Amino acid sequence: MKENGKVTIYDISKKLNISAATVSRALNNNPKISKKTRDLVFAAAKEMNYKQNRLAQALKSGKSKNVGIIVPYINRNFFSSIIRGIEEELGPHGYHVIICQTHEQMETEVEQINTLLNTQVDGIFMSISKSTTKTDHFKKVLDEGKSLIFFDRKLDVPGVSSVVIDDFKAGYLATEHLISQGCKNIAHFAGDLNLEIYKNRYEGYIKALKDHGFQPNPDYVVTTLSSVESGAAAVSKIWELNEKPDAIFSASDYTALGAIQELKRIGIRIPEDFCISGFSNEPFTKYMEMPITSVDQTPLRMGKIAAQVFLEQVDSPQKLTIEKKVVLAPELMVRNSSDRSLHKLAIH
Amino acid sequence: MKENGKVTIYDISKKLNISAATVSRALNNNPKISKKTRDLVFAAAKEMNYKQNRLAQALKSGKSKNVGIIVPYINRNFFSSIIRGIEEELGPHGYHVIICQTHEQMETEVEQINTLLNTQVDGIFMSISKSTTKTDHFKKVLDEGKSLIFFDRKLDVPGVSSVVIDDFKAGYLATEHLISQGCKNIAHFAGDLNLEIYKNRYEGYIKALKDHGFQPNPDYVVTTLSSVESGAAAVSKIWELNEKPDAIFSASDYTALGAIQELKRIGIRIPEDFCISGFSNEPFTKYMEMPITSVDQTPLRMGKIAAQVFLEQVDSPQKLTIEKKVVLAPELMVRNSSDRSLHKLAIH
Repeated sequence: MKENGKVTIYDISKKLNISAATVSRALNNNPKISKKTRDLVFAAAKEMNYKQNRLAQALKSGKSKNVGIIVPYINRNFFSSIIRGIEEELGPHGYHVIICQTHEQMETEVEQINTLLNTQVDGIFMSISKSTTKTDHFKKVLDEGKSLIFFDRKLDVPGVSSVVIDDFKAGYLATEHLISQGCKNIAHFAGDLNLEIYKNRYEGYIKALKDHGFQPNPDYVVTTLSSVESGAAAVSKIWELNEKPDAIFSASDYTALGAIQELKRIGIRIPEDFCISGFSNEPFTKYMEMPITSVDQTPLRMGKIAAQVFLEQVDSPQKLTIEKKVVLAPELMVRNSSDRSLHKLAIH
Repeated sequence: MKENGKVTIYDISKKLNISAATVSRALNNNPKISKKTRDLVFAAAKEMNYKQNRLAQALKSGKSKNVGIIVPYINRNFFSSIIRGIEEELGPHGYHVIICQTHEQMETEVEQINTLLNTQVDGIFMSISKSTTKTDHFKKVLDEGKSLIFFDRKLDVPGVSSVVIDDFKAGYLATEHLISQGCKNIAHFAGDLNLEIYKNRYEGYIKALKDHGFQPNPDYVVTTLSSVESGAAAVSKIWELNEKPDAIFSASDYTALGAIQELKRIGIRIPEDFCISGFSNEPFTKYMEMPITSVDQTPLRMGKIAAQVFLEQVDSPQKLTIEKKVVLAPELMVRNSSDRSLHKLAIH
């Protein structure tokens, strides 16, 4: 073996006394090469510790065995769990996963798609940024013959598959649950309604109210950022209303946490006087002394299914332009912040 | 402009009636090309929507303007804050950041270094996995003339710079704080002591005990995983001892959280009967109803300094083999889980 470890196909060709072209074909499983020769070449390659140059291989086969994932933030449990699901599903197929975050900037998203395409990924999984309005950068991925799969946050782009949860149903379920606890004036802390996911959660909330005979009150809908501070500020805002709400369906767990802190600060008892549901089932919702009701979006499953869609497409150019739209069912995790059943038992 | 948008230097050369080589040199700011020609070429390139192939450019200049970051987990606030620091510092210099996670597997770490090298990154920032014992894959990065910078978790590898916090001091500070609260039997929930960071935290704990006249008790040191479940289990373990501890310095916030939950479950009052300090200043430590004392490792700063070390090296091959070792000071965030000062006021 050479000192620097950089054994080439020429070294193998010399050792076996066959042409370098034959060695190359054998290593690439070219069917023109006999099994006997292929076995000889692989044995020699292994013995000599030959490593194929993956980039050269990628340029030749058109496959790098790398995929890219782009998310708004890596440190939200929802997104990191989806990433984990993609990794778990693609790992056994020999894929490596590289990750980028946009911090909600479309400009960064465009640059990162270019970066990933330049590093020769075979496909891109992504959840779009809040500020994304254009779709040229998505079309570019398809133009280069690569898979593009949206999860959770998406835009409708022909040829792009997506895996989402049924956010309308999730908003409906959470609101209906609050109604079932006896709440009559349910506020909604919404996300950016330009994003489909937040719009759907909002519409599920409105539909549940109407289906149960409640008239939606626009004053009860506050647009928030997904942060603790924004949740506390939104409580202050609704607390100025003459008829104060008695529940919040929040489109974000962080906003729900901020709301709980602010309500406790001003002396409101939860869940006796006020019920709250968050959204995303972030781990902290479970660990609080006041565990927070939340919607589980099954992100691990979402990642795995996105990965399966990719695997179906990656070796079938004809499937690349067939959109596949998967919608998963949300699951409401009822916890102390909105569960009055235990309290009723204790009081009566 | 061509339909498929793939304008080449040949299209520009045709339009301007100059050679393709001149166009290429102009685009690469070759000083042999006059400013007038360069301006003409750039104007035409812009007008025709020409995009340089970054990969081809990278192969030519040896610089891709991409860097890789490898962390054990992306969803720990500590690591995601370091990543943010690197992004903030390198963004203005035109670098793009791609991220990989190892899930603590050395094998994955080796593969990811190969993946990043194959995608032609200019440098790699990383925190090693718990199971990493070999250093060949680190040497490979240096052999390829790329920067390698460790942050937080490191091994001593000649030529590799590192940015860490003073974990010994952090362990010392946290333990000394517990002593100052009147605790006499202080347990330590340790991480894997094969990792330098955990070993240093442990040694800081031992030194603080000795400096204050306490005899370290080996029964009080429990090795834990960084998880809520592991913290609860470790409390059960120390609760079997005849002389029970009255405080815990935990090397992890998650373990501290599990410990608090278990202690409350068995009816121990915190901080009156028992004081706890965690480690890492994860955001949840602040948001709990019982906010947890913790050590802030200034991860954003750590990331920024790591990025600065990279920027110093990237264009100076002679600096590549000069190790730079930066040690940052930890900061103890005293909160309710160990702060008896408020309670004393209330009781007496």
